[in-house]
Amino acid sequence: MKLATLRNGRPDGLLAVVSRDLTKYVSAGRIAPNLQAALDAWETAEPALQDLSRSLDAGRIAAQPFDLALAMAPLPRAYQWIDGAAYLGHLERVRGIQGSKDGALQGTRPLLYQGGSDRLSAATDPILVADDGLAVDFEAEIAVVIGSVPMQATREQAAAAIRLVGICNDVSLRRLVAEDLQNGFGFFHSKPSTAFSPAFVTPDELAPAWRAEKLHLPVRVSINGKLFGQPNAGVDMHFDFADLIVAATQTRSLGNGTLIGSGTIANAHDEASSGKPDTIGFACIVEARTVEKLKYGRARTPFLKAGDRVSIAALDAAGNPVFGTIDQTVALFRR
Amino acid sequence: MKLATLRNGRPDGLLAVVSRDLTKYVSAGRIAPNLQAALDAWETAEPALQDLSRSLDAGRIAAQPFDLALAMAPLPRAYQWIDGAAYLGHLERVRGIQGSKDGALQGTRPLLYQGGSDRLSAATDPILVADDGLAVDFEAEIAVVIGSVPMQATREQAAAAIRLVGICNDVSLRRLVAEDLQNGFGFFHSKPSTAFSPAFVTPDELAPAWRAEKLHLPVRVSINGKLFGQPNAGVDMHFDFADLIVAATQTRSLGNGTLIGSGTIANAHDEASSGKPDTIGFACIVEARTVEKLKYGRARTPFLKAGDRVSIAALDAAGNPVFGTIDQTVALFRR
Repeated sequence: MKLATLRNGRPDGLLAVVSRDLTKYVSAGRIAPNLQAALDAWETAEPALQDLSRSLDAGRIAAQPFDLALAMAPLPRAYQWIDGAAYLGHLERVRGIQGSKDGALQGTRPLLYQGGSDRLSAATDPILVADDGLAVDFEAEIAVVIGSVPMQATREQAAAAIRLVGICNDVSLRRLVAEDLQNGFGFFHSKPSTAFSPAFVTPDELAPAWRAEKLHLPVRVSINGKLFGQPNAGVDMHFDFADLIVAATQTRSLGNGTLIGSGTIANAHDEASSGKPDTIGFACIVEARTVEKLKYGRARTPFLKAGDRVSIAALDAAGNPVFGTIDQTVALFRR
Repeated sequence: MKLATLRNGRPDGLLAVVSRDLTKYVSAGRIAPNLQAALDAWETAEPALQDLSRSLDAGRIAAQPFDLALAMAPLPRAYQWIDGAAYLGHLERVRGIQGSKDGALQGTRPLLYQGGSDRLSAATDPILVADDGLAVDFEAEIAVVIGSVPMQATREQAAAAIRLVGICNDVSLRRLVAEDLQNGFGFFHSKPSTAFSPAFVTPDELAPAWRAEKLHLPVRVSINGKLFGQPNAGVDMHFDFADLIVAATQTRSLGNGTLIGSGTIANAHDEASSGKPDTIGFACIVEARTVEKLKYGRARTPFLKAGDRVSIAALDAAGNPVFGTIDQTVALFRR
């Protein structure tokens, strides 16, 4: 089934079940007022939501048209957002300018950081920045919502806890990344609100594209309507989501409704730049710029400026967005 | 007024108003089911809670005895926990072994890190560790709960957003800190669940001890019943809470119910060790060990082991705990 959270003027929004083709929705408010409440009672809420989903897709109940602009982030505020670095290609391409000193460990244990989760952005929210000279970048990622997991979880416990799958845009201010990394306290100022796809989907609905704790679908990224990258999220993912969850439980348990991200999707290739229809390209700008510097002596791809638009969608075999499209435009914050 | 969250089998607990002397409580469930709900409707909830508090302290309503063991963290799960480094004495004492590379900035802008907030510990919860050889340490801090604050907030907006004040124990696994800092992704494995005082208190209730966005009270720390430190939280706090909040809004707004910590309380002194009645001492073990290494060539104060107990309380003029006492014992996690 596919779930979404609709704007209703409240901070947690209204839980809705969305049709497989994302054209219709029905409120799930009678089952749970919002997604966190459903996750808190998943054993009873999940079968009821699945029933509603079957009735909706069978056309047995009245439904409303689903407009992406109605959707908030599935968890508009979450108790935890953990982002990983599962695609080593991303780290290898950007390490030089991001200055990670963890090279020796990167292949053996995934890097994880604690992200802000008090205000997560909707797929169509603007990327609000006070200064678009901060090297505004996007990062196309896969994300999962999990149930609670004990400290030092096994792979089996980790895999069994995955409730929903979606995509996200981990907005990054590259000019502030180096400073955040240098002070050693992690990404704080350099990672403003992450945006999430309009729909999050259960693994059973995604199968066979969801297998071995990875999403085996191409993720298409466009900037201002022009193709920028289309890596496959199932390719070159060095750590799967069970690995990421297990790593996150080394010293602590994880609460119900924790969001975990894959880090920037990156496929191995030696392309010099993005955007040609037959290329794989990149799922963030800084990777393209780093490769361009090496090949041409200078970066050609500009970072995002006010008015620039980035679109991210995971596509099924027919080329349709599975989770809906993340479609954000950079806007300047005015106090 | 003084607020607490009582265990009721639900993840967010039950909101209660506690008497000034912390001996009695009355449920505030009719005003708001839990503290986050009260914060979400603070304009209407706060006056109703203040009325209830006045009735309780005047003995006009039936109350139950307040047992610290009933209390969860005031926000048992929060949408955000941001911890700062407001006492430069702490950074100066530990920098050598914690390897922060931000020395040049430390006096001009507070360091902040994003902490985990999905499962915050009660004052009497055990400090659960899989291995007590990880150099288990505590950090006695002041913490505030704030309402929502816009991006690039002014000092006035920041100060006006402070709703409640309390204390916390930012448990730290020192053996993992260096690795976390080196990988640059921030404290992840080295900072398990932070514990919070049983009661959180409004600034008006604390005045005059709460002034200039600082808490001017001694915080007494004991290990296994023996005095370890008693620094005053209002002394040598280089950045006040308005500074911390403003710094946190450099690139983003802050959601309602955000928790912000001061970092380890540290007063300037040249004492060689902790624990004498007429000394100030330290509010974490690693500071004492660093000073001991410099003075004696070796650290004398051991880190915490299974069975060790740490107690933290902010004391009023009469020597009574204002927020109740954080009283935790280290316990080994068994899968």
